[in-house]
Order: sequence, then structure tokens, then C-alpha cells
Amino acid sequence: MNKNIAAFGEVMMRLEVPNYELLSQANTLNYSFSGTGTNITAALSRFGYSSYLVSTLPDNSIGDAAIAHLQKLGISHQFIARAGSYIGMYFLENGFGWRPSRVTYSNRRESSFNTAVNELYEFEHIAKIMDIVHFCGITLAMNDSVRKQMITFASAVKRNGGTVVFDCNYRPALWGEKGYKEAKSHYEDMLHLADVVMMNEKDAMFILDMKSEKINREDQLTELIPIISKKYNISLIAGTQRTIKQDHTHSLRGYMYKSNTLTFSNSHTFPVLDRIGSGDAFTSGIIYGILEGFSIKKTVDFAAAACMLAHTTKGDTPMSTKMDIIQAMTYAARDVER
Amino acid sequence: MNKNIAAFGEVMMRLEVPNYELLSQANTLNYSFSGTGTNITAALSRFGYSSYLVSTLPDNSIGDAAIAHLQKLGISHQFIARAGSYIGMYFLENGFGWRPSRVTYSNRRESSFNTAVNELYEFEHIAKIMDIVHFCGITLAMNDSVRKQMITFASAVKRNGGTVVFDCNYRPALWGEKGYKEAKSHYEDMLHLADVVMMNEKDAMFILDMKSEKINREDQLTELIPIISKKYNISLIAGTQRTIKQDHTHSLRGYMYKSNTLTFSNSHTFPVLDRIGSGDAFTSGIIYGILEGFSIKKTVDFAAAACMLAHTTKGDTPMSTKMDIIQAMTYAARDVER
Amino acid sequence: MNKNIAAFGEVMMRLEVPNYELLSQANTLNYSFSGTGTNITAALSRFGYSSYLVSTLPDNSIGDAAIAHLQKLGISHQFIARAGSYIGMYFLENGFGWRPSRVTYSNRRESSFNTAVNELYEFEHIAKIMDIVHFCGITLAMNDSVRKQMITFASAVKRNGGTVVFDCNYRPALWGEKGYKEAKSHYEDMLHLADVVMMNEKDAMFILDMKSEKINREDQLTELIPIISKKYNISLIAGTQRTIKQDHTHSLRGYMYKSNTLTFSNSHTFPVLDRIGSGDAFTSGIIYGILEGFSIKKTVDFAAAACMLAHTTKGDTPMSTKMDIIQAMTYAARDVER
Amino acid sequence: MNKNIAAFGEVMMRLEVPNYELLSQANTLNYSFSGTGTNITAALSRFGYSSYLVSTLPDNSIGDAAIAHLQKLGISHQFIARAGSYIGMYFLENGFGWRPSRVTYSNRRESSFNTAVNELYEFEHIAKIMDIVHFCGITLAMNDSVRKQMITFASAVKRNGGTVVFDCNYRPALWGEKGYKEAKSHYEDMLHLADVVMMNEKDAMFILDMKSEKINREDQLTELIPIISKKYNISLIAGTQRTIKQDHTHSLRGYMYKSNTLTFSNSHTFPVLDRIGSGDAFTSGIIYGILEGFSIKKTVDFAAAACMLAHTTKGDTPMSTKMDIIQAMTYAARDVER
Amino acid sequence: MNKNIAAFGEVMMRLEVPNYELLSQANTLNYSFSGTGTNITAALSRFGYSSYLVSTLPDNSIGDAAIAHLQKLGISHQFIARAGSYIGMYFLENGFGWRPSRVTYSNRRESSFNTAVNELYEFEHIAKIMDIVHFCGITLAMNDSVRKQMITFASAVKRNGGTVVFDCNYRPALWGEKGYKEAKSHYEDMLHLADVVMMNEKDAMFILDMKSEKINREDQLTELIPIISKKYNISLIAGTQRTIKQDHTHSLRGYMYKSNTLTFSNSHTFPVLDRIGSGDAFTSGIIYGILEGFSIKKTVDFAAAACMLAHTTKGDTPMSTKMDIIQAMTYAARDVER
Amino acid sequence: MNKNIAAFGEVMMRLEVPNYELLSQANTLNYSFSGTGTNITAALSRFGYSSYLVSTLPDNSIGDAAIAHLQKLGISHQFIARAGSYIGMYFLENGFGWRPSRVTYSNRRESSFNTAVNELYEFEHIAKIMDIVHFCGITLAMNDSVRKQMITFASAVKRNGGTVVFDCNYRPALWGEKGYKEAKSHYEDMLHLADVVMMNEKDAMFILDMKSEKINREDQLTELIPIISKKYNISLIAGTQRTIKQDHTHSLRGYMYKSNTLTFSNSHTFPVLDRIGSGDAFTSGIIYGILEGFSIKKTVDFAAAACMLAHTTKGDTPMSTKMDIIQAMTYAARDVER
Repeated sequence: MNKNIAAFGEVMMRLEVPNYELLSQANTLNYSFSGTGTNITAALSRFGYSSYLVSTLPDNSIGDAAIAHLQKLGISHQFIARAGSYIGMYFLENGFGWRPSRVTYSNRRESSFNTAVNELYEFEHIAKIMDIVHFCGITLAMNDSVRKQMITFASAVKRNGGTVVFDCNYRPALWGEKGYKEAKSHYEDMLHLADVVMMNEKDAMFILDMKSEKINREDQLTELIPIISKKYNISLIAGTQRTIKQDHTHSLRGYMYKSNTLTFSNSHTFPVLDRIGSGDAFTSGIIYGILEGFSIKKTVDFAAAACMLAHTTKGDTPMSTKMDIIQAMTYAARDVER
Repeated sequence: MNKNIAAFGEVMMRLEVPNYELLSQANTLNYSFSGTGTNITAALSRFGYSSYLVSTLPDNSIGDAAIAHLQKLGISHQFIARAGSYIGMYFLENGFGWRPSRVTYSNRRESSFNTAVNELYEFEHIAKIMDIVHFCGITLAMNDSVRKQMITFASAVKRNGGTVVFDCNYRPALWGEKGYKEAKSHYEDMLHLADVVMMNEKDAMFILDMKSEKINREDQLTELIPIISKKYNISLIAGTQRTIKQDHTHSLRGYMYKSNTLTFSNSHTFPVLDRIGSGDAFTSGIIYGILEGFSIKKTVDFAAAACMLAHTTKGDTPMSTKMDIIQAMTYAARDVER
Repeated sequence: MNKNIAAFGEVMMRLEVPNYELLSQANTLNYSFSGTGTNITAALSRFGYSSYLVSTLPDNSIGDAAIAHLQKLGISHQFIARAGSYIGMYFLENGFGWRPSRVTYSNRRESSFNTAVNELYEFEHIAKIMDIVHFCGITLAMNDSVRKQMITFASAVKRNGGTVVFDCNYRPALWGEKGYKEAKSHYEDMLHLADVVMMNEKDAMFILDMKSEKINREDQLTELIPIISKKYNISLIAGTQRTIKQDHTHSLRGYMYKSNTLTFSNSHTFPVLDRIGSGDAFTSGIIYGILEGFSIKKTVDFAAAACMLAHTTKGDTPMSTKMDIIQAMTYAARDVER
Repeated sequence: MNKNIAAFGEVMMRLEVPNYELLSQANTLNYSFSGTGTNITAALSRFGYSSYLVSTLPDNSIGDAAIAHLQKLGISHQFIARAGSYIGMYFLENGFGWRPSRVTYSNRRESSFNTAVNELYEFEHIAKIMDIVHFCGITLAMNDSVRKQMITFASAVKRNGGTVVFDCNYRPALWGEKGYKEAKSHYEDMLHLADVVMMNEKDAMFILDMKSEKINREDQLTELIPIISKKYNISLIAGTQRTIKQDHTHSLRGYMYKSNTLTFSNSHTFPVLDRIGSGDAFTSGIIYGILEGFSIKKTVDFAAAACMLAHTTKGDTPMSTKMDIIQAMTYAARDVER
Repeated sequence: MNKNIAAFGEVMMRLEVPNYELLSQANTLNYSFSGTGTNITAALSRFGYSSYLVSTLPDNSIGDAAIAHLQKLGISHQFIARAGSYIGMYFLENGFGWRPSRVTYSNRRESSFNTAVNELYEFEHIAKIMDIVHFCGITLAMNDSVRKQMITFASAVKRNGGTVVFDCNYRPALWGEKGYKEAKSHYEDMLHLADVVMMNEKDAMFILDMKSEKINREDQLTELIPIISKKYNISLIAGTQRTIKQDHTHSLRGYMYKSNTLTFSNSHTFPVLDRIGSGDAFTSGIIYGILEGFSIKKTVDFAAAACMLAHTTKGDTPMSTKMDIIQAMTYAARDVER
Repeated sequence: MNKNIAAFGEVMMRLEVPNYELLSQANTLNYSFSGTGTNITAALSRFGYSSYLVSTLPDNSIGDAAIAHLQKLGISHQFIARAGSYIGMYFLENGFGWRPSRVTYSNRRESSFNTAVNELYEFEHIAKIMDIVHFCGITLAMNDSVRKQMITFASAVKRNGGTVVFDCNYRPALWGEKGYKEAKSHYEDMLHLADVVMMNEKDAMFILDMKSEKINREDQLTELIPIISKKYNISLIAGTQRTIKQDHTHSLRGYMYKSNTLTFSNSHTFPVLDRIGSGDAFTSGIIYGILEGFSIKKTVDFAAAACMLAHTTKGDTPMSTKMDIIQAMTYAARDVER
């Protein structure tokens, strides 16, 4: 049980307009702190593991608030440097029915994390301590400096026998036009270092420029994932497929490729309270399955149920316990618990 | 119209986490005061009857707040003693979709109500004034002292020609393991005194240890309720059957056994805003039907519609008027009323 | 693009009970300012036109707050007089599921708008500036003085070559018993002046006392609208047909009669966040189609999508941009936009 | 202890802008229900007496909310008629420092209370039951109909041996220009009927048109009050003198004229949380002293302390208990009570 | 009355922690939009002038919200360009007593305003329309590009006969170490162009590197301001002197140098609700005095009272009307206005 | 810097009524988690030390929320057991001016902490790790079981060379009548084990039954503290003296007896935002002075300033940084920091 898990990534301040209002209607915001690395390590802390974020935050009131929030989530800030002046932020206007939710980012290019110098991090030291370290494609989109930090850190983890998890998480808005072209080599750097990768058929076709004659998403996955696994020597590839239905419920199932087999989870159909960060709940479920030695089927089912439940709590960060997730795996609608 | 209705029971403080958050996420709570007796007498006050709660509250700010809240609901506090130091409380974390709501109780064993001495109550005097008095199985789970108070009070009501209503309301968490075994004789004490009983097939099988070969709930009811009615000489037995569907709407119908006939209400399917206390709305509808001399079918339909509407208002306590309920019995989805 | 649009009508203060509570449960209200004219001109301002409200508000803190709110919505207050003492208000208790929403009005008969003297308005001057002016049947229900102001203003608009839009908007509660009888001649006054009219088959049958043997609403429309168009010389008649389904979603389509043809929009089925004012979004869509020279089909589709989206934002006033509406016309459920 | 106290007067809805914001800045309001009669009877209910409001409220959601609020305050609504359509309302923008608080009224002339017909009230019946009935000069400003109701009711109280309390409460905004002239005879009608009157030197000079050569307020009081007491045969006259200091604290002392003696209370200097309704706390203290048979000095000291404490709680209505007031009479600043 | 006033400056988003909490304690924020130019033009709009902001905002939801907020304040957005991606923001943690308030800025260097290209502004066109244009030293601290825009715009205003107002507003945090040295020439550029300057003795000594042997601030002012006025040919120089007292009230008086005379306003001592932006209220009072042709003494007294009142309303932006300010000039503590 | 600090004590849930309302007025509460041990360890964590709470919390949602809150404050929950069912709670109604704040406790006798069995704690193990452990007189009031745990733990700390800090914190309400008599021997048990004691002259006279002929508090302290220090062999005794003034500001100074000298801090006079827990800030300042090796005068001045600042932040728990406190020691009222 006493495994150490870390994530390398940016802490974002989430500023959410309450009550389905627009920014131009309201005058209050709810705030919290999240980010892919935050979400993953918070979930694993809740599952009982020692969790660390490797990041940089400004040494001011906002940085203090971020640290307090991370601590509340059970994440150690031992490896969080305090430097720079800014934190990345995003505003969330929650949609309703046919009106989609909208995310608007503030400037994160100059954030403490994205301008941090290498000297702030003890990658070699941290790599020695950690069993698993998680990296994210969002960081890869930022600049050469953080990309180099990713490579340096992931290499150190690998060299020290740790597991490197990489979530492709391609965000078109961050890469801009011609983004896929520019992104490819950076993604390949990480794929070569990664043991566990979160990826779907679109990542394969668009980032890695792979071709498929198949039309259906499942067929594309089945064709392309084994090739990637082999080419980059990745032992586990996983992800989710989501459909949004006309009644605004979501349908979702997870998949996991390992030992030459692509295994799908059971499918969930569910209403959504807060969609953001739900993919990170899936990733944390996969990592948990690995750490606990679950079967492939149980791992992907656990991860899919964790992902589904993450849509039912406020905030980006998964809040479910192991017991919550195991109960959700039974697909029984439940009355008040008392 | 000028009938007097009382309930004997504990006032609980409800502390609800707003906006579907968890206790570990939020930092504000909405509070109100409720309890089975509170809910029933509030509903009957709204229907036009004089309503009283027979209970004990601490003589401090929390007791004052509870009294103010009961008064707001139209309940007289004339027979509420002020003694002891504490009030029972519960925290409510509202669920969403597949995530169930969760209730966490504070210590109610040492509450003012559960530690009140007999001298605080003028049962004989109150029994003379009341036309109907309501008792609840939750009180039965507390301790010998309140159980004796229930028996004393119910006997006095019966002796004075009043109607004794008893809601079985078995709560496994309060009785602990071996609970059914321990509970049986206490329940039988009340069943012997009661004229009107809220009960379902599970109560029959688990508390009263009755056997049925039937599998389906309706068949079990049909078999067991007449036997109970006869054995304990109960003139009216009623209750609800609820199904929670995969889209998280609830389906519910009421039933009422009287004059050797089991009558079912029409069935409602509906989304849920606040589920807690909805059973008390059903009970208040049955009592209202009795007081107004409604037909059996109209009584159980009124009670079922009252129960359904209680799911659509915030808080434990039914807030619907007679007119609201009569309109809901038509099953027509309605536009804004202006 | 630089067309000027005005509406003549009352500004209402909306006082909404939050969180689905009743007025007798809560102790806070959300407030905003709206009204048919406000909603239409706000929408057209958002679409890029110069928008004006012609109205009267009290010269006190509430009037100041109303002006500030109108400005926030992009409406010019250049032609809003400050006189009288009161503003019309309404309280909104939001329904849930089978419990309908409820609107309770305060006294608007003595409001600044409804007691304003003619001298407060420069109708001739305003009529010269405006391309389109919107009038509403709600004003028609108030008193002889505002009715005369409507006629005076609409005549001036017509005389100056502007387009007169009239929304029948019959409100039974405002006209009282025998209301249709009393209303007819006042409505006919406006129909004779109007170029564009918002009206449905019920208005035809109840206000104008027309007969139809048809049972189905579409057939009634098809029969009656052409007759009205001809009789009153109205070049464009439009409206919506709405059905509320058992799962509380609404189904809605718009129609538009022009050049001897009745054209229906595609139909939308959708959940509702805030229903009030959605009809005004439809009207603003029709006006926008006219101003932009859209085809009939595109106009009515745009208006219907605008109407649907107005159900998904808080408040009476449409908040959607042109782009939002065009995307909604594609009927594709969408994920978070980032 | 079982004395019955009633007040005849209007229930107002108070709509308060939170957080020291202006109506043109905020978008939420806190609401409650008050009015002079409400405040007095609420205070006396808290002191242990049976309290009734004699008034009229609309039979809609707002009237229901008002009734619920009155019940919460311990006031019986047995003598509140339900008729008419509107409730009087006022908006409160709280001042800060040198910026004064501002009250803006909605239309109360057409409120349920001010348009109620005589048949709605059983004055003779109520007068028989009550020991003390309170009337207020604000009602006197409304219209002839309610003025006649006041006279009818006060005469009945007097005839039945009850005590008539009359608070002059002159509000210039309600009487308009030439108000004092018009008001005089109406005030005299009530002074002739009253046993206890709340009045100050300004009322004497402006309403009753009395002359004084004295400059200082205390001297004016000392000169004029005995004359009034004699002329109108009033056994007790009381009131407060308030000074607002440069640091925005208030200084206040009460006075009471009885048995040919003018007695002043000790003086309080205090910061203000909520000033509105504090005068009603003074009146309720005077009535309480009468009911309990306190000495003159103790009565006026109790009333002044009650008045001072009413400035320290939110809302118009006094919330202090007897014990709170008795402790405040000691003038000792106190630490947290636990 | 129909003078046109503009300001050139950045719109900032203010994110305020409510209830005196710290960012690390709370989870909600109140937001509004302000900035020196916003505050000045909002105040002058409230005083009845046509007000414009010349600025750049991002074309996204945050920019839309800022526009809506400016409109609410009565500011025209006709000359606000939509370009770039970000808005400057600051977080405000309100202090209490001895704990000072704290402002933490997000990155504004890359904001839309600070990265706007010259082509976005029609300075020559705007300069022709405006009677007065306001500039601020904060803009001067940003970068060469906006500094050049300031010079270009101010020169155009001067050339077209308009009045250039310049507020020195030196912010040490923005200029960094050696800031005064770097700032001097930029400030001198603006001083040479300005007709009206807001400046104090510290600006003279630190920015302009002037020497004074005097110790007391008033003496320093008296010595240095006339020299500056002459050297840079500035017709009016004004400012405030503030002292914070041990009881946390502020003492403040304004001064104004014109026609070779330094005139001081009366002094105010007052408690503070919201200190930020109060200096802009002073400036707007000076501009108002100029526009209305007030005497020097009346101008500086009006400005000082406006400044004092700006401390008593929430938000950065002055909310007082002319009448509010004129009443505050009487220095009388006032009771509730009704 | 890497010293380990622990406290042994109960975690309380604080439920605060917002906006100066009473429990009988409001319907929302703000909640947080505190307690003497929590406050001390949170402060020392903020000062940079590793902090631990040794306690027991229920294994339910409330316990989870408490843990999250403690983590947010930087306190490790490594030594917090999860057992029992309840948490101690208190309700806080904030006073205003002459109306004192009021605290109402729920039942804490049956809380997880107060019913925890010895086996839940590894006192010997913890004592080996800790440099300083803090104990509190509140725990001493609970029951024999926790008293024994205190003695066991404190003895282990002493035996292992750690420093035992004991805060007398006598609460009359917890000890009941004859409390001092009963408390004496228990207090003496702890005084014999303690190195550092928080105590004042009243503790000496009432708990320890010491006599003083002196009248003035300072004289009593000067006489009694040296005797106690000698008798119980306590190396450091400290505390505060507080006066509440007529304008409701507090005046406070600290004192510290060490090396045969009683040293007083400078005195602070200040307004109060939140008084509860401020004594714990003083204690944490004393402990910090010890850990950092401050001089006696600097230690007591730092502690007094920390205590003063704790009155200026919301919540029981000190939130000030070292820098905040050092600045407060200068006694200069400060403007906004930006």
C-alpha cells in the first residue's frame, strides 16, 4: 500500500460561474484548484497512496491558496517550488441542455509552472522515490523548456525503475494551426519513454498521422492501438469512448490494451453534473488497477465507473472513494444512504 | 375543520450541503428542522387543522431556532417541553445521478427528546384534547424510557377516544444487528394500540417475522396485510411501493387496506429534487383523507400525489397545499402559472 | 447594420426565489429587470443593432437600478422618462418536475409606465429615428391612457415609414372576466397598424372571435392566419406551438406566414432552465431575419432556435449570440467548448 | 402572564440589499416581513404574551410567506384576513459611515391592508379578547377607510376595558406637503382614545401645532408633554431622544411621563447594525413594563435597553429576550458567552 | 452638459474574496471590472456627461462580461477594440483592523490592452470628438508600445483643443527597482502634454527627482507644486493627502493648485468600507468642477467629498450622485433616508 | 527548522451563523473545523514546522471533511485514529456592539475523541518523534479515560526528552458547579508534567486555590506566578490580560514568566472580527519563540501580536504568517498592500 505516486504538471485555478449563469450575468465565482496532475494524485491519495505533485506555484496569496487546496485533497506539496508570479486560470460557464459549457483560459504561458527554470526541480531525487509518475500532453504544448523538463524527469523515472504514465490529452487550442504536425515529434519523445499511455484512435490518426480505412471508432482503435503499442514499446494503452445523446446524457465505456488484447469495460449511460476532469478519474482508476494488481477487466471496469462517478461531483477533481466506485460498478440506481 | 392533531416525536436539525457538494468540499450548510412528527403536523396545519408537536427541545439558541421553525410551519409548540441540552442532527449530502444521497447522523441518543423524563409531558391532558395522535417507529428504536412514554401516551389517546396512527418506519441503522428480533415485541405493543398503521410487506416479514411464499411485492402485501389487520385489530393499513429507474426517476404508488380491501393508487413517475420526508407526506395525505371522509380510492390517490409532490420541494417537510395536490392528481404537465 | 430598433413597454422587476424554494421557505431573492420590450431590444442589441426602450421609470434607487440593468443589456435609455413612483414587479417561484413554476405580480397598475402622461414621450421624434418599433399586447391590457400612447406612437412609426411589430401576448389575468370581449377592439386597433404580428390560433379564435371547425392546432392556424393577414393587411404573422411532455421536456416549433405561405420551423425538444421570456427570443429572431433579409425558412428556423436557447439561460432576457443560435440550429448535442 | 396583546397595522415586505451594496450594484436581496404592529407583537410574544396581528394580507404566495414569517415570530394570524392582491414593500440600501441608509417604498396605497373593507374585521369580537391593542400613526396617513377602522377598533377596545396604545410615528413622506395641517384632526381623534402614547416634542409642535419658547429638546418635552397628557387625558406618554455622533455611533435615552412626572432613562451610546424598527422595540419595552408592573424608572430603562439592542440585530423586528435586555441594562461590554 | 469625456486605459477584472476571508480560506469570489479610466468615466457618466473608454478587450466571454459591466456603469464601448486574448486581473483580500488589505495581480503584461497594436485605435478621430481625455501613470509603466499610444493620443487631443488630464499614479511594484529613474522621462513626456495633473509631493521628489528641505508634507507641496506647474506649463495640479489613524479611520483632504494658488479642501475623517479606486473619485470630482465651472474651493471640496464617499461603497468605481456628494459636503451624520 | 510539533485534543466542528444573524433568523451556516490543538498545530505549520494532531475522528463523511480541513491547514493526520461515531460541534452566533457573541455546544461527551480507547493511540511511538507536544485543560474536563490518556502521553513525551506544553484553559461550563474543587488535582497532575504552561492569575486563585491580598490583576500575577513556577517546577508560564472597552475594542497584552522574571509585551488595542481561538494564537507564538530561540521580550511581543492578528481573520484558527506578525509588531496602521 505504501507506494509513492507523483504527477508533473501545472496547477490551474478554476473560476466557475454558479447557477448556470454566464460571466456577463453573474457577479460571483466559485474557485478551486485543479489540473490533470492534481486530479490524478488527489484520486490516488483518496485510494490510500502517498501522492505528490511536482510543480511550481507563485509565492503569493494565490500560490498559498493553491497549496492549501492541494493539501486538502491529500496531495503533498513537498516537491512544489515557489517561484514566478502567476498561476494559470480558467473560467467555466456551465451549459444547460443544448447550450454547451464554455471554458475561457487566462494567460498560462507566463505562469509559474511554464516559466520555471530547471534548477527548481530535483528530478533525479524525486525519480528515486516514486513508483509511478504521471505526465500530460497539455504540458507538452507549452514551450521547449517544460518539454525538456518532461523528458528529463521521465527519463530519470525510467532509469530508476519507476513507471511512466503519459496521457496524450491533445488540446487543439493550445497547439494552434498546424498543431498536429508540430506536436508529433514531441509526443513521440514521450511515447518512447512511457509504460502506460492514455490515448484514443484520434490521437493515433491525427497526432501520429496513422491511417485507417475503418470508419467506426471501435474498429479504428482495434486496428491502430496494437501497432502503437508495438512501435513505441508501450505495455498498456487505455482510454474512453464517449457519446453525447440527444437527451444530454452521456454514454461512455473504457478500453484497455494489454498483453495483445483490447478489453472494453461495461458501458455507462448517465446524466452529467460536472464533466471537466472526468478523464483524469479514468486514468487514476487504471493506475489504481495496476497498483492493486487487478485483472484487466476489473481494472478497466473500475476506471470506467470512476470516470462515470467523476461526472456526478462538483469540481474537476475525482472525489469518489473505492467503495463508491465498487458500488457504481453494480449499475443499480440507489436510494438515499442512511 | 377544527380537529386537533398531534404527533409525538423528535425534532431533528437537518444540515444540508448545498449545490450537490460533499461535506469535504463545501463550507456552508443550509439548515432546517424536521422529523416525522414535524412533517406530518406541518402538512396537516397547511391543510387547515390545528397541529401540535409533543416533544422536548433544549432551552438554548438551537431550541429557540427549532421552535421558530416549527411555528413557521404552523405547528403549535404548546406541548413542547424545554429541557436537556442537545438536539438530534443529521447532515445531508445530496447525490446526483448514479451517486446516491448520503445522510450522516450526529448523536441523538443523548438528545433532549430521548433523555426527557416523564414529568415533562402531560399525556393525559393532551390525549383528551386530540382527535388524532401520530407515533413513529423511529422513536421506538431509541430507549426504554421513550418507548414507555409512547405506550403511555398512545394508551391515553385510545382511552380518550382518539385515533392512534403508527408509522412502522423501521431504520436498520438504529436497531443494529439482531435488530428485528429486538424490535418485534416493541412494534407489537404499538400495533395493538394503533388504529391506523403505515407498513409494508418488508415490515411484515422482517419485523413481525411473517412468512410468504410469494416473490412479488404486491403479492406479498396482498397476502400479509389482511392477516396483520386482523391479528392486531388495525382498521387501516397503508403504505407506498417505490421503484427507482435507470434514469433516476422514481415510480411510486400507494396502497391502503381497509374494510377487507387492498386499494392501490394510480402510479406516478417523476424526477426527484428532495426525497427525504416524502413518506411523511403520504401519511399526512392518508390522515387528511380520514379527517375529510374521502373515499378509499380518493384517499390513497390524494396521499400518493402528496407524496409525489413532496419530492419536488426542498426540505423534509411537505409544502404543498390541497389545491396543489388535487392538481397533481390530474397527471398533466403544466406550464408556468401566472 | 446600423438600423435603430425600439420597443414601447414596461420594465418589470423580476424577483426570483433561488434553489427551487418557495417564498414561504427562502429568505433571499435574485433580482433583474425585464419585460417584453426589454427582452426584444436586448436581443437585437446583442445581434448588433442600436436598441432603445421607450418607457418611464421612477426617479429613485429602483429606477436607477433598472436603468443600469438595461444599459448592461446594451439598451439605450435615451428615451426613458423618469417620473412616477413605482415599478411593476413579479415574484417567481421556480417549479420542479410536476410542480409548476408560479408567478405572483405586485401592483403594476400604478407603475410609472402605466401612469405616465403623454408629455413624457416624444413619439414623433422617436418615430423618425427608428426603423422598427415593437409593441406588446400586455400594454394594451393596462388602461386607456397607455393604449392611446400605443396608437399614437404606432401611427407615427407607420407615417414615418417604420415597421410596426405587434405581439398579441394575451394575458387572461390582466383582462379579467369578459376580457376577450373587451380586448377585441383594442387588438384590432393595433392589428390595423401592424406590419408584423406575433399571434397564434387561440388569439384568432378567442380575441378576434373567429370560428374554425378544425380540431388540431396546425389546421386551425392554416385556416385562420391567412384570413387575418388579409383582413388587417399584415405582411408577416409568426408564432410558436409548444407541447409539454410527461418527462417535463418541452417540444416547440415556430411558424411564419408571409407571401401567402405558412412555413414551419424544424422542431426542438429540450429541457428547460428558465422558461419566462422565451417567446420574446422567438420574436427577436423573426425581427433579426427581417433585418438581415434571411429567407423565410431560415428566419423561422433561426427564431425557433433562439427561442429554444432562451430556455437554457437564466433570466427572462435572451442571452445568446448569433453564433450560439446558428450552432443550435444544427441539433447536435455538444461537449464542453474550450 | 396570559394577557392578550394585539396590533392593528400593515405587514410590510422588507427587501434588503446585502453587503452594503446599492440596488444598482447587487443582484440579490434578503427579505423579511415587518411593520410597526408586527415588531411590537413579535417582541411581546418573545416576552411571553399571546400576540395577535389584526391585518389583511393577499391570498397568494406572498401572503403565505408573510403568514409563515409572522408565525415564526410567534404572532398569531387568527385575526389576519386574506383579501386584496398586494403587499406593501420597501427596499433598504444599507449605508456605511457618512453614506446614509436609504429606504425606497413600493406602492402601498393599493395594498391588501389599505384597501380592506370593514367586513373583513371582527373588531368588537377582538376588542373583547384583548388586554392591550397597539395603533400606529403610519396607518393614519393612509386613507379615510383605514382611519375609520382605527377609530372603530380603538373605541371598541376602550369600551371593553382594554388599553389603547398609540404611536404617533409621523412620516412626512406619507402626508406630503401641508401634511401637518391635514394630520392634526386625525391625530387628535386617536389621542382622545389612547391610554398610552408614543410621542416627542416635534410631534407636539408640528402635528398639534403647540408653541414653545424653549430651544433645547429636553426643555420642550418638559414643557409640552404634561399639557398634552392633561388635554387629551393620556395616562402615559413616552418616547426616545437620539443623537447621531460624528463617529456614526448613536446616543439615545428614553423618557416616560406618568403621574405628573417626566422620567428619563439612562443614556446609551452604541454602534448600529440595523436601525429600522428600533423605535418599536422601545414601545414594546414600555408595554412590557406596564404589563409586568415595573416601576417607572425600571420601565423606561428596560425600554431604552430594548431599543438599543434592537440596533444590534438584523431586521426590523426586535429579537432580544428579557434576559438579553436585563444584561444590557448593566452597561458592561461582554466577551463571548459560552 | 453635452460634453464628451474619454479615458485611455486598461480594464481590470477585480476578484474580491468576500467576508474578510483570505484566498486560502474561501471558495467564492465577487467580481467586477474597473481600472482608473473606468472609474473616472463611470463617475462622469453618473454626473451626466457622455463617457467613453478607449481600450482593448479580448473577444471572448470575459471581454463580453467586461463590456456589459462598463455599459452598466454608463460608459460607451464605442471605442473599445476587441483583440488579444487576456484581461488584467487582480485579487483583493480585504483587511480588517490592523490586518491590511492585500492586492495580488495576475499577469497583465500580456493583456489585450497592453499588447494592442496601434491600428486598433482611431486616436485622431476620437480626439476630435472629446472635450477631455484622461490618462494614467499605470499605463505608462507597461511597455513602450502603450507609452507611444499615450503620447500619440494625448498629442492629438491637445492639437484638437481638448483638455489632457494626467494622473501620475506611480505604482512601485510595476516599475521595479530603479523604477523612478526609468520612469522620469516617460512622466515628463506626459507632463509636457497635460493641462490637468494629479500629483503629490512624493511624485515630485521621487519621480521628478526634485529636492525639498521641508519635512512636513504640506510644506513640501507648497514649495514644489508651483515649480512643476511653471516648468511643465500645467494649469491645474491637484491631489489628496491621507492619514491612517490608530482606530483605522482615514483622514483626508484634497488640494488644488491653480492660478498660482494652492487651495486645500476641508478635511474628512471617516471609516472605510472599500478603499480601492477612491483616488479616482477625487479626480472625477476635479474634472466635474472644471466642466461645471465651479470655484476652486468648491471644486476641491466637491472632489474631496466624492473621494470620501467612494470609501463607503463597494467596488473600485465611484457610485455617488451629485446630490450624495453635495450632502456629504455638509459634514452632518445622517439617519436613514426614507 | 525540521522540528516536529504535536497536539493532543479534540477536533470541533464550528457552525457559524453568517451576517450577525441569530440561529432563529438565518437558514445557512458556515462550517469549519478547529479546536485548541488544531489551532496551535495549524499556526506552527504555517510558521514552517511539521505539525501533527493526535486525535480520533469518526469514519464517516464528517470525519472525512474534518481530515480534509486539517490537511488544508497543513496538519498531518498520520496520528488521527478513525473510530466512534460523532464529532463535537458548536454553533456560533456573532454578536455586534453591546450584544455579545454566543456559543452553543452540541454533545461532545460521546464524541469519537472523548470515547476513544487507549489502543487507538501509539503514544510511546509518537512521543519519540515529537519535539513539543501541546495539551489543553479542555480535554481535562471530559472524563477519566481521556485524562489518563493525557497523563500517559505527557509522561511519555517527558521521558523521551520532549517539551510538554499545557494550556490551563479552564471552562466553567464543562466542569459544572464545584468544578474548581474537582478540577484541582487533575490540573496538578498536568502541571507536574509540564514545561511550559499557559495560565493566568484567576487559574491560580480559582483552580489552585491560591490566595492573594492584591486587588489588581497585574499584582496578583506578579505575586502568584513565581510561586507556581517554583512549586510545580515549570520553566515557562505565559498568558494574556484582556480588557474590553466601552467602544467594543479590545485591549490586550501578553506576559511571560521565565528565569524568575515576569515580562510584559507591548499592549495592543484593536477591533475584533473573530475572537474565538485568539488565545491559541498567543500560545503558538510562545512556542514559536521557544523553537526559534527568541529573547523573552521578542517572544512575548511576537505572541501578543499573533494573538491580536488572530482577532482580525475569520475562523478559530490563526492564519497569519511570520511576516504578517512581524509587521503587526510595529503598531503602524497600514494602507492596502499592492
